[in-house]
Amino acid sequence: MIKLAVLCSGRGTDLQSIIDAIKAGTLQAEISIVITDKPNVKALERAEIAGIKNICIDRKTFDNRADFEAEILKNLAGVDLVILAGFMRILSPEFVKHFTGRLMNIHPSLLPSFKGAHAHRDALAYGVKVSGCTVHFVDEGTDSGPIILQAAVEVKDDDTEETLSARILEQEHIIYPKAIQLFVEGRLKIEGRHVKILEAAK
Amino acid sequence: MIKLAVLCSGRGTDLQSIIDAIKAGTLQAEISIVITDKPNVKALERAEIAGIKNICIDRKTFDNRADFEAEILKNLAGVDLVILAGFMRILSPEFVKHFTGRLMNIHPSLLPSFKGAHAHRDALAYGVKVSGCTVHFVDEGTDSGPIILQAAVEVKDDDTEETLSARILEQEHIIYPKAIQLFVEGRLKIEGRHVKILEAAK
Repeated sequence: MIKLAVLCSGRGTDLQSIIDAIKAGTLQAEISIVITDKPNVKALERAEIAGIKNICIDRKTFDNRADFEAEILKNLAGVDLVILAGFMRILSPEFVKHFTGRLMNIHPSLLPSFKGAHAHRDALAYGVKVSGCTVHFVDEGTDSGPIILQAAVEVKDDDTEETLSARILEQEHIIYPKAIQLFVEGRLKIEGRHVKILEAAK
Repeated sequence: MIKLAVLCSGRGTDLQSIIDAIKAGTLQAEISIVITDKPNVKALERAEIAGIKNICIDRKTFDNRADFEAEILKNLAGVDLVILAGFMRILSPEFVKHFTGRLMNIHPSLLPSFKGAHAHRDALAYGVKVSGCTVHFVDEGTDSGPIILQAAVEVKDDDTEETLSARILEQEHIIYPKAIQLFVEGRLKIEGRHVKILEAAK
């Protein structure tokens, strides 16, 4: 069974979608650990309720990123795939390199549009009529790695960050478990910037 | 009746979709003139077959852009809305200013991703899984004006520029006539970078 680690910073709704997909049997993997970089966040509670090991590695208690990441790494022994699910820290190139092809992120825009921490706000400010979300492998850049799946959603004239983000989240909760299941099935083939999705075995 | 001018450089498939929408009655406008910047292109033939006045203003016969654009302008007297439909020239800021809010373009990507003349190629090179097309008002930048409508399409692993562009064209032929009809109905309200689509009158 493929072992996942899920790294979160907040509400953990993407985490919940992964927990639910595993329960439903549409995602054949197990979550070994949930790690947050902040204490007392909802994601820890969700993991606890689901009976999943969960720890907070509080970034604020570390002097530097290297020590913080070393502590995370210690907790990732035996993990096959690391899932960033609303994890609001930039990981070092060394960390990323260590997990090349085994580190996924989800971003609430149709990349390469609206990289960075304010995707919904930036999409609304630009005035796009379509936005969406992107699951990608993480590389050393910001939101720049090879794209696995994307889903589009309509942007409405009266959207706020809240309404747009809710509409995009619905799609995140579909495509993130789906992307992970493709990984589990060995169907993701990275070729440079491209992720080819292989046919399912018969 | 709202009078359109359509500027093209090549095959004129977007032009054809506008001609067809007018014939079908879903677009209530008339095309006063079709102008191309190159001789012997299919767009001229399509206009001719539809009984629409059509001229080539051959860019190569002009020493500079100002003279070229002056000749175009002469032919736009009485025109309410100028439609760029695969017109492969950058218009001067003066020209654009003259038609502020009355000059539309269609671009074969989900802007702001993949601006410029090689949208399909760039989208494939990046490895996106979703692309699309954008109808926008033209401003003084390149493919940067306020967005009117967008449509998303899937990008497939085995897509070539040809197959992707064909899939996007299907959507172009839907949203361009639709955007023009919204203009005709007075339902496009430009507010800075945003184009609000007003409710239809009852």
